[in-house]
This record gives sequence, C-alpha cells and structure tokens, in this order.
Amino acid sequence: MPKLLSQLVYPADVPKYRRTIYNTNWCLLTKNTGRLLLLAGDQRLEHLNNDFFGPGIDSADNNPEHLFQIAVHAPIGALAIHYGLASRYGYNYRQVNYVIKLNGKTNLISDDPDSHLLATIDQTIELSKEAGFHLVGVGYSIYPGSRYEPRMLAEASQIIIEAHDNGLPVILWIYPRGGKIKNEDDVSLIAGAAGVAVSLGADFVKVRAPKPLTMKNIHRVVEAAGLTKVIFAGGANTSHDKLWHDVSLELKGGSAGLAVGRNIHQYSVEEARERLQVLAALIYENKTLAQATTVFNKKRHAKNNLK
Amino acid sequence: MPKLLSQLVYPADVPKYRRTIYNTNWCLLTKNTGRLLLLAGDQRLEHLNNDFFGPGIDSADNNPEHLFQIAVHAPIGALAIHYGLASRYGYNYRQVNYVIKLNGKTNLISDDPDSHLLATIDQTIELSKEAGFHLVGVGYSIYPGSRYEPRMLAEASQIIIEAHDNGLPVILWIYPRGGKIKNEDDVSLIAGAAGVAVSLGADFVKVRAPKPLTMKNIHRVVEAAGLTKVIFAGGANTSHDKLWHDVSLELKGGSAGLAVGRNIHQYSVEEARERLQVLAALIYENKTLAQATTVFNKKRHAKNNLK
Amino acid sequence: MPKLLSQLVYPADVPKYRRTIYNTNWCLLTKNTGRLLLLAGDQRLEHLNNDFFGPGIDSADNNPEHLFQIAVHAPIGALAIHYGLASRYGYNYRQVNYVIKLNGKTNLISDDPDSHLLATIDQTIELSKEAGFHLVGVGYSIYPGSRYEPRMLAEASQIIIEAHDNGLPVILWIYPRGGKIKNEDDVSLIAGAAGVAVSLGADFVKVRAPKPLTMKNIHRVVEAAGLTKVIFAGGANTSHDKLWHDVSLELKGGSAGLAVGRNIHQYSVEEARERLQVLAALIYENKTLAQATTVFNKKRHAKNNLK
Amino acid sequence: MPKLLSQLVYPADVPKYRRTIYNTNWCLLTKNTGRLLLLAGDQRLEHLNNDFFGPGIDSADNNPEHLFQIAVHAPIGALAIHYGLASRYGYNYRQVNYVIKLNGKTNLISDDPDSHLLATIDQTIELSKEAGFHLVGVGYSIYPGSRYEPRMLAEASQIIIEAHDNGLPVILWIYPRGGKIKNEDDVSLIAGAAGVAVSLGADFVKVRAPKPLTMKNIHRVVEAAGLTKVIFAGGANTSHDKLWHDVSLELKGGSAGLAVGRNIHQYSVEEARERLQVLAALIYENKTLAQATTVFNKKRHAKNNLK
Amino acid sequence: MPKLLSQLVYPADVPKYRRTIYNTNWCLLTKNTGRLLLLAGDQRLEHLNNDFFGPGIDSADNNPEHLFQIAVHAPIGALAIHYGLASRYGYNYRQVNYVIKLNGKTNLISDDPDSHLLATIDQTIELSKEAGFHLVGVGYSIYPGSRYEPRMLAEASQIIIEAHDNGLPVILWIYPRGGKIKNEDDVSLIAGAAGVAVSLGADFVKVRAPKPLTMKNIHRVVEAAGLTKVIFAGGANTSHDKLWHDVSLELKGGSAGLAVGRNIHQYSVEEARERLQVLAALIYENKTLAQATTVFNKKRHAKNNLK
Repeated sequence: MPKLLSQLVYPADVPKYRRTIYNTNWCLLTKNTGRLLLLAGDQRLEHLNNDFFGPGIDSADNNPEHLFQIAVHAPIGALAIHYGLASRYGYNYRQVNYVIKLNGKTNLISDDPDSHLLATIDQTIELSKEAGFHLVGVGYSIYPGSRYEPRMLAEASQIIIEAHDNGLPVILWIYPRGGKIKNEDDVSLIAGAAGVAVSLGADFVKVRAPKPLTMKNIHRVVEAAGLTKVIFAGGANTSHDKLWHDVSLELKGGSAGLAVGRNIHQYSVEEARERLQVLAALIYENKTLAQATTVFNKKRHAKNNLK
Repeated sequence: MPKLLSQLVYPADVPKYRRTIYNTNWCLLTKNTGRLLLLAGDQRLEHLNNDFFGPGIDSADNNPEHLFQIAVHAPIGALAIHYGLASRYGYNYRQVNYVIKLNGKTNLISDDPDSHLLATIDQTIELSKEAGFHLVGVGYSIYPGSRYEPRMLAEASQIIIEAHDNGLPVILWIYPRGGKIKNEDDVSLIAGAAGVAVSLGADFVKVRAPKPLTMKNIHRVVEAAGLTKVIFAGGANTSHDKLWHDVSLELKGGSAGLAVGRNIHQYSVEEARERLQVLAALIYENKTLAQATTVFNKKRHAKNNLK
Repeated sequence: MPKLLSQLVYPADVPKYRRTIYNTNWCLLTKNTGRLLLLAGDQRLEHLNNDFFGPGIDSADNNPEHLFQIAVHAPIGALAIHYGLASRYGYNYRQVNYVIKLNGKTNLISDDPDSHLLATIDQTIELSKEAGFHLVGVGYSIYPGSRYEPRMLAEASQIIIEAHDNGLPVILWIYPRGGKIKNEDDVSLIAGAAGVAVSLGADFVKVRAPKPLTMKNIHRVVEAAGLTKVIFAGGANTSHDKLWHDVSLELKGGSAGLAVGRNIHQYSVEEARERLQVLAALIYENKTLAQATTVFNKKRHAKNNLK
Repeated sequence: MPKLLSQLVYPADVPKYRRTIYNTNWCLLTKNTGRLLLLAGDQRLEHLNNDFFGPGIDSADNNPEHLFQIAVHAPIGALAIHYGLASRYGYNYRQVNYVIKLNGKTNLISDDPDSHLLATIDQTIELSKEAGFHLVGVGYSIYPGSRYEPRMLAEASQIIIEAHDNGLPVILWIYPRGGKIKNEDDVSLIAGAAGVAVSLGADFVKVRAPKPLTMKNIHRVVEAAGLTKVIFAGGANTSHDKLWHDVSLELKGGSAGLAVGRNIHQYSVEEARERLQVLAALIYENKTLAQATTVFNKKRHAKNNLK
Repeated sequence: MPKLLSQLVYPADVPKYRRTIYNTNWCLLTKNTGRLLLLAGDQRLEHLNNDFFGPGIDSADNNPEHLFQIAVHAPIGALAIHYGLASRYGYNYRQVNYVIKLNGKTNLISDDPDSHLLATIDQTIELSKEAGFHLVGVGYSIYPGSRYEPRMLAEASQIIIEAHDNGLPVILWIYPRGGKIKNEDDVSLIAGAAGVAVSLGADFVKVRAPKPLTMKNIHRVVEAAGLTKVIFAGGANTSHDKLWHDVSLELKGGSAGLAVGRNIHQYSVEEARERLQVLAALIYENKTLAQATTVFNKKRHAKNNLK
C-alpha cells in the first residue's frame, strides 16, 4: 500500500513569505495539536433568537455578550462570529482568538439558501488590528444543492485563495441542502461535502455528523476530505453524556475536532466552561472518556446531591 | 453574575482618527443622551401618497416641505430622508440634522422585497457639504425572509463598515417579511432582527414594537440587540394617549427611543411639534407620563372647550 | 400657514461651479419660463412601429426623420430621443435642443418591465459636442411595481446625481405598472409617483394625467411633487379640442407643461407645428384657450370649407 | 414635402480622427456600393449541427473550413463569424473580410433567449492584427420580447458606441421573439425592429423578410429604419429561383442587401460561389433578374442535360 | 476537392512571443503526438462521493490522494483537477502535468446547471509556480441548453482568449443538458457541441461518445469540430474489453484521445496503471487492439489462474 502524505502539508497558495504567519495562526487555532474545538457564535445571525431564549436556555444567553463571557476563559481554539459582533465586542474581549465567518444569512429562507460576503478579508484583517485581537482564521458557508451553489463555490474558492495569500487558515461550513436532498445526515452526502472542501483547498471543513454515527461512516467522511481536516457540528442541544460519547467516537474515527454552539451557549458561563473543559480534554489531550469526564461528573453529582 | 459592557463602547471599525467626528455625530444624533427621537420622512418614497393625503390627514402633509417645516424647530435627533429630498430642501433647512436613508423602494412590491442603494456614503457626505447641513448618520433597510435578504445583509454590512470608517453612526431598519413569516409582530422574530443588527455591528436598529407590548417582550428585544441600541417604530397613526403609553413602556423596557412618522406628519406643523415635545420629554428627559403630557393635555382641553 | 419655498431652488448636488451651465440648460429647456413643452421621440424604440404607421397616421411619420423635421422649427423646449437617433440625425438637426432619454425598452414586455441604461451621461455629453447640438437635459424611465423597480430607482438616483454634477437637469418618466396595480390612472398612484420623483431629487417628472382629470386631482399630484415640476403625458392621439382643454386645465392645476408624442408626430409637419403653436401659447404665454386657438381654428375652418 | 437626408451621413459618435478608418471599413464592407452581401457563418454556434449535415446538404459543409473555402474567392462584402472561428482560421484565410459577431447562443433555448458578449471589441481588433485580416465591422444580436431584452439593448448600444469610436460599422441582428409574439414574420413587428436599430444608431440591421413579401411591406420596414440600412435574412434553404426573386423584390423595395447562410453553405464550394455571383450581380450591380441569372441558368441547364 | 488545413495551426490569439511556451505546453500535454490521454480528477467535486466509495470500487479511491498516486507514474498527458486539490497535493506530486479545471459544480443540481469560475488563470499560473508543477493547460465546462448557457459561453470564450494570451491550451467540457434535450447521446447534439467548441476557438473539446458508436457518427463529430481536437469521455465504469474496443474505434474515426475517470480511479494503483498503459499504447503509439492489450491480458489470465 502506498505511503500517503501526512496532514502537515502547507497549501501551495500560502506564499513562502507568509508561512510564518500561517503557521502562527494554525498553532493558535489548533493549540499546537492540529485539532480544533471551535465555539460557534455566528448563530445569532443564522438562527435568529430561538436558539438563545426560551425554556431550558439560561437567561444570560439572550445577550450577545454571553458568548464572549464564555469564550474569554475557555479552552477553545477560537470563537467564530461575524464581523459586526467582533467590531462591537472584539476590543473588550481581545484575549479571545477569533475566526470571522465571512458570509451569513438568517434561517427564514430554506429553499435555495444563499449567503453573501458580509466583509472582505482585508476589512477583517484591518478590524483585528484596530481592535487588537488575534484573527486566527476565516470561515465561509456553502450550501451545495441550492440554485446558488455555483456562486458560493466560486466565492469560497476566492476566499481560500485570498486567505492563504494572507497567511490565514480557512474553515468551510458545508451543508448540502435543497429540493433534491432527502436526508441531510446521509454519509454519502457528507463525504461528498468533504470532497468538495478538499477540492477547494480548505484547511478545515465543518459538516454534520453522519447518521448512523458509526466508525465506518466517520472514517469515510474523514478520508474523503484528504488533507482537509474534518470537524463535526455539535448539532442541537443534547444530553452531555451523548455529546461526550459522540465526540469521542468521532475523534477515534479520525475527526480533527468539534464545532459547538447550542450545547455550550445555552448554559450559564460556569456550566459552559465545564463542558468545554471536557471537550478540550478529549480533543486536545486525547484523554479517554472516563478521564475527561471525572471532574465534570463529580460536580454534577455534588449538585444533584444538593438538590 | 458577570459584569457586562456599558453601551458607550466605540465600534472597533471607527478608526482612531475618526473618533472625534463619530462622537460629535453621536452627540448631535442623540442630543447627548444616548437616546434617539427620529422623525421618519423616507415614507414619501416608501409608502407613496396614501400616508400623506386623505381623510384625517392635515392638508399640509401632501407637500414634501411639510416634513421640513415640522423638523426645523422640533426637538428631534434627526430627520431621516432620502438623498433626493435632501438635495432639494437641505440647503434651505440646513438647521436640521439629517440621517440619510441610503436605500429605498415603494410599497407596490410586497413579496420578496428588495431595496437598493440610491446614493453612496461619499455622495451623501459630499451633498451635506454642498448644502451645508449636518449629516449625523445614515440608514439602511433590510427585509430578512425575502429572497433578496442575502444581498441586503451584505450591502448593509458594507454600509456600516464604510460609515464607521467616516465617523458616521448607522441606523438599520429591519423588517422580517416574506412567505414563511406569519406574524410580523412576533417577539421572537423581532428579537431575532435585533440579533441580526448587532451581528452586523449597527449603532441603532429600528424594529416594529412586539405584540403584545409587555415589559418582558420589550426587554427580550433590547437585550438581544446587545450593544446595538433599539428604537421602536411608531407605526400607524394611533390615539396620542396610546402613543405616549407605549413609548413610556418601551423606554422602561430598555429601548433607546422612537422612530415616528405618520403619528407626526399627518398633523399640522403646530400639532406635530406639540406631539414631538411630549415624546422628547419622555425620551430625553426621563419625564414621567404625567409630567411629559401636562402642557399637551391642557392645550387639548382648551381646544375641546373651544369647540 | 408657513411660507413655502419657491420652485427656483438649485438642487444642492449641482456644484457651485456648475450652476451657470445648469442655469443655461434650464433656461433653454424651459424657454425662460420654468415650463416645458417636450416633444417625445423615444417612442420609436418604446412603442415599436404601430404608433408611426397605419390608418389615420400621416405617411411621413414612418420615417424617423419626421420627428426632426417637426422639431426643427417648432416652439418646443426640447426633443426627447435616445442616443442612437441623436448620433444619426443630431448633426444635421443641430438647431434643435435635445433631452437624451438614457434608458429604454420595447413594449413587447409588459409584466415586470425593466429598462437599462443605453448610454452614459459622459457618452451623451461627448456626443453632443461631436454633433454640435445643445444637450439641455437627460431623461430616465422608472416602472414602480415591477420586480425590477429597486434597480431602476437606484439607477435613476445615480443618473440624477451625475447629471446634476454636470449641470444637466433630469426628467423622470414614472409609470407604476405591474401585478398589484389595477388602475394606472388612479390619482393616488400618480401622486405617489410624484413623491418618488422628489425623493430622488428630479427636476421634472412626467406622469400620466390622473382620471378623472379634475383640478383637485391635478393639484394633488403637483403638490406631492414639491420642488420637482410635473409635466403630464399627452397620451394616445385624441381630438385637438380635448387636448387643448386638458392641457389648459392641467396648467391651471399647477402643472409645468406637457410631454407630447402621438398627438403631434402622427400629423404632417405643417399640422404638427400648428398644434405645437397652440400648446406653446398655453404653456409659455399663459394664453387663454380662446386666445391660443384662434389661428388654429381659423385654419381648420378654412380647410373644412375647402373640402 | 421636406427634403430628407441621404444615407451617407456619418454617425456623430465616429470621432473626426476615425472617419478615414470608418470610411475604409464601410467601403470594404459594401464594396463601394453602400450595399451588403453578407455570408453568415455564425450559425455553427447558433444552429448547432443540423444546418450543416444531413439529407440535401453537401458533405463538405460539416467541416467549419467549408465556410472559408467558399468565402475566399466569393464576391461577398464580409464573412460573419464568431471570434473563435476567426482565431482558428483567420490567419490562413486572411484575404477574406470579416464581420465578427460579438455575442452568441445555441438554439437549445427558445423561451426568453439571451446572448452574451463572447469577445470585446478591443480583443477583436487585436485578433485581426495578430491574424492579419481585415476586420470591417462587428455584429450583435438582440431578441426583443425576451425577458433579457433590456440587457441586450443596453449591451448593443454600448457596442455601437465603442465600435464607432474605433471606426467600425455595426450590424445588428434583431429578432423579436418570446411569449407575446405570435407571428415573427409580421411586418409591423419587423418594422418595429428596424426602428429599434436606428434608435440605437446601428449602421445595418438584419431582420427577417416580412410575410407577405410585398413591395409595400418591404418599403415600410426600410423606411422605418431611417438612416440605418436594412438587409434581410436569407432564411431556410429555398429554391434558387425563389431566392433570386425575393432578393430582387427586396432591393426594389429599398433594402441594402442580404445576409445569407444555409442557401449558400449547404452547397459545394463551386455551387455556392455560383449562387453568390448571382446575388452579387443583383445587389452590387443593379442587374435585372434576367441579366443576373443568365450564366447560372446556363450551367444548371447544362448539368441537367448531362444527367 | 479543396485542400484543408492540417491541425497544427496556431490559434491567432496566441501572441507571437507566447508561441514557444504554447508549443511547450502542447507537446507536454500531448506527449508530442497531438493526441491526449487525460485523467479526470475533477469528479471529486462534480460527482461527490458515490463515484469513489462503494461496492466494486477499490477502497483506496475514497482518499483524494489516490488520483495522484495513479497519476505520478502513469503514461497520461495530464491530470485534470480543480485548483484546491492542486494547492493541497500539487507540490508533493509536482512530477505530474496538470490541467486545472477552472469552473465546477456538484451533481446535486440537474435542471439548468451552472458552473462558475473557481480560480482565475492568473491565480492558476501563480499556483503552478509556487508549487513547482507544470501547468500544461486549463479546462472549462459548458452546459448548452441550460438557462445559464449564455453566461458560460461568454466566460468560456474569455477563458480561451486569456489562456491563449498566456500560452496555455484550453480543453472545453461541453455537455448539452436541460429541458429541451431528450437524448444526451444523440450524434447531432454532440456534433453541435463540437461546432460550439471550434466557434469558441478551443484547442480540445471533451464530449460524450455518441450512441450508437459508429465510425460514421464519430467522424461526424470530429469533422464538425474542425481544428479543435475531440476527446471522448470514458463514461461510467465498463468492462475493460468494451473500453479498449470503443477507444480503438474512436481513434479510427479521427478522435484525438480520451478523458478517463471512473474506469481508472475505481481500481487499485497497480490496476489503474495497467489500464492506462493499454490506453496509452492505443492513443500515442497507434498500436492495434491486439498489440496494445497483450501484456494486460496475460496478467489478467495469470491472476484468474491464481484464483
């Protein structure tokens, strides 16, 4: 069997004089592990208000600053938000590393989703300098299957080329969606999305976790992505045990980490951080499920006893 | 509970050398209070003629100059109009502070509304210099849920970046509208619009008042907007008592003010000013309902006695 | 009642160093009267051939040169044509003043009409210099209610800004049209169109005459246009007596003149000029109907006696 | 009756320093006669393969070089082809004069046809220099009645302005087509197309021949085109006698010539040239039908006798 | 019968100073034979995952690097991939010659396919320099019959002009597709596509093989392409005997080679190379079917005996 490339290859469109900065960003983004725990805050635009307010959601979550309060001391690789949120809160939370999600749309349109560039890479870099925070990467969403897919593929490709030219890693969000797609959790579709990501030259791709979530299915997706690293979406708020279990399995299947939103920000700052610490132990330190959850479970147990 | 940021934070994309001008504009716009009473005159394009002529509408309202006659001595933060109206009347009413609403459309299209840029920020700044009036901010409308939403989100974002770069505050008008939206007054939808505004980095957002208009609902919207300030739309012409009551409640719920159109311009210049004085007392001076309406009610009483 | 502005105010986006040229163009266009009798020749593109050939139409009208033959000695403010017609005939008829209609479409599309820019203002100015004729203004059509309305509103606004920057007055043709519009002659709709024109900063707006054509309706439209002057469309070919009567009423109602096409070019050069002389007497000289039509009626009478 | 302009007027947007080159191109294109016999080779893209292969079509026609073999020694004004064909064969057939058809589409779309610019005028001029052939004009197709009509009208207008600026005559192909059009051969529609051409300032317009093909109908079309010269389309392959007869009638009715495709290239090189010679005699030399066809008929007769 | 041009003519839009580089690329691409065996790897984006994983597909194929492992020692003219794949793997497989497929889309949209430019020619050339591989040509897909056909035709034409200007040969993928097309294998349609390619000036065109695959049909397609060379698509995975037979027939019919994907990459590296060697013998060395397949058949025989 032929020897395959490791995953530490520089994309050739990072010019040689930008490799140091690319390397710095990569190390900050992945905490020197090549893996990524990404806190997603772009949903304030993408999902409107229902993810942030309601039964079972901590009341602090309605305020956009809650995301920053969580991020500021949590063991995440980066907080992914849109430009405007960074322009408003970035200076005051400049200890946080940011991935700016460059395009965006609301969830009010479901047929043929389209998502346009809200800010350019130059504007984003300029903002990071004015606000004094670390911009460690940029993000872009594609919806294959939408009639606007060709436009988004082209824009994503240009974003990757321009980001690499500036030494910035790129995370693609790829969600096949539209008339012909019957099952968004289908492994073949998700592995296809992974193939799109590497064909565009992305550094990371965020996709839905396939269902059923088997080792074979995870591996199929990860392998199809080639040198592009796969992080799975955390999805809707689930029980913490299921979340630990799923992430653990995904990492064994070769994934490079997790993008997590509702499973974190719908909790109080304290609880959110505890959860992120479990995830960080799994993702960055290769801890076993038992090792990673010891502290968390003790606290849970203590709390339950208090009730 | 964590300490949250106050609302006096500069957006990081206002360059440091533009902070003085941004600050000046902000103080003019909010009369040094951080709050805003905005007189909306963009409806001459947006609503065509029915809002300005007919039973119950003062005959003076049919002439576009009526807006300026009201604005020139009224305690408003700014008069919001389109570029063309400012090019025609701005020189002769250069005592008024203006917010130029940069995009616009008529009400003849309701499905999938779209609204394009009528004038650029550079052209608007140039006009204010030629005419000699104070341009204290710019406005832009977004219709989430329309198939043109992605285009408008992107254009709004660019407008905010460019306005901040010129030291100009931005007011977004956000009205979710289109096929999937069943209730435009739903608090979740309006709080979502507030979240869109802060994700884009706006200074103010103008949204519909949620129904039912409860303290909880108002607060939900205001909190979701984070560092972006919320002003509610005055809506259709209602009884003055209801208007005072609603505004009073909105301010208690945390809103930063009001955008008012039909409730003002459909009256004679004198009556319009009297109404604006009540609103100004509530918004800028934190007067109680009773304090703010004393003079107004006396005059009403006197007039009714004359009949 | 407050004192209103006269209609001699310069648009503030005419730069001070361009006011002389703007003033010259304005005086040529309105024959120093502030009023306008416009001969419309853009219909050769807009209406195709049926307006120019057939029963009751003088056989000379089929040749595009007929328009120029009429215009060359008639008391009109300007001949409105498209760029291409001006490039072909403008040099040989350079005594005529021209308004170049910048956009255009045929009448083969009725749902959602759209009309794109055929020539830029710079190209138009350049043409006038090469051909040696007076370019006294430019025109642009908008169809509110069409799904392309937002594009046309934006382009019209840019045209006005650029024309004023070059010292050129602008005439907007505004025709609300499309699915939601049931009655194109409705006074509310036409007054709305007038409000659009002033919101865009136009110098003149050409709209349909409202039906019924009452003094009240005419005045409503004219007043809603504010500092933008209103000229009504002559419409389909009607009896000359009705035409004189309508124009006379419109002028009394405050209109600034007339745009006339079929009622003129469907006649021989001689008859067309006679009709224009009646209209000129009404529009420029404020003659009564009786005064203005004396000569015309005598000639009619004489001709009828000859038969 | 007023004296009308002759058809030798320069378009005013040909700058004075370009008149010599415009004149040279015009003389080459019209063989100093003001008339045009155009061989159309754009159909290889526009009509796909069915016009070039099949029963009754000479087998040589399937090869694109056949067009050049015909053109190289035939008495045509120009060969009209797309840029790509000229880039492939132009150097080897640089004795031929070319009109480059700038836009193009296939016949696979019939509703709402649209046709985009394949090459710019600058690129086309550059190609003619590299290949060493005479570029004597450019062509552009418009489909009035299509929903893309406004775009094509605008692009055509810009092409004419730019071509004239470079001293190049322009031929418009105008084919009204789409939902509302019931009869593409209707004389009113075709005369309307002629009016569009002159409103855009074209030098020549190619339109369908009206049906019925009467002197009155031909004259109506030609007259409506004013200073723009009319050439009729040869249409589908018909009997040679009908072709001679139709062309002869069209010329009497005032047409400036013919654009011919299938009636020529579907024959062997030798036969194609014989047919072009008849057409050239009619178009350039004002020969009668009898004079023009003498040689052709003799050869036909001889061939038939041989069978 | 007239003498036709050979196929070694330079396109006239390759400037003279670029002919050396064009010639070098041409020789690398065609291995000095004027023929082309192209390994297609763009399907990872175009076909998503189903072509690379499943029953009957070698498990190595799921990893994008498999394509490079095959290509690195195989007798192909070039590996055709998208920019992003080249940016990720190009440096490590810089011995391979690449054709970068400039546009792309997934197979999730079938009605009215559209495919946008993912990278520009300048970006592609820059990438080849940074990665150190030979860029021997660029590719572009067109879908005639789609409502986006006009846009793609125009973009393809511009790509060809710009590629030639840089000394790069262009391969067009042309697949008529959409509502009106009933049979994508119809010879008339495919010959039409060939005519489109030469009308655009392409160097190679990749089309489907017509059905039935007869010498007459092959020749019709090849001849209609004129100076543009035809390579047929290998199509879905078929028996190797059928593949050898079809290619052999196509070459006899005048084709210039083959583009092959699934018939190669769905096999192990070793098997894939064996198949490519048979194809290379047929395409480059004009071997007979018997000569070309001797070694391959022996190995097959040996393997079968081992089972």
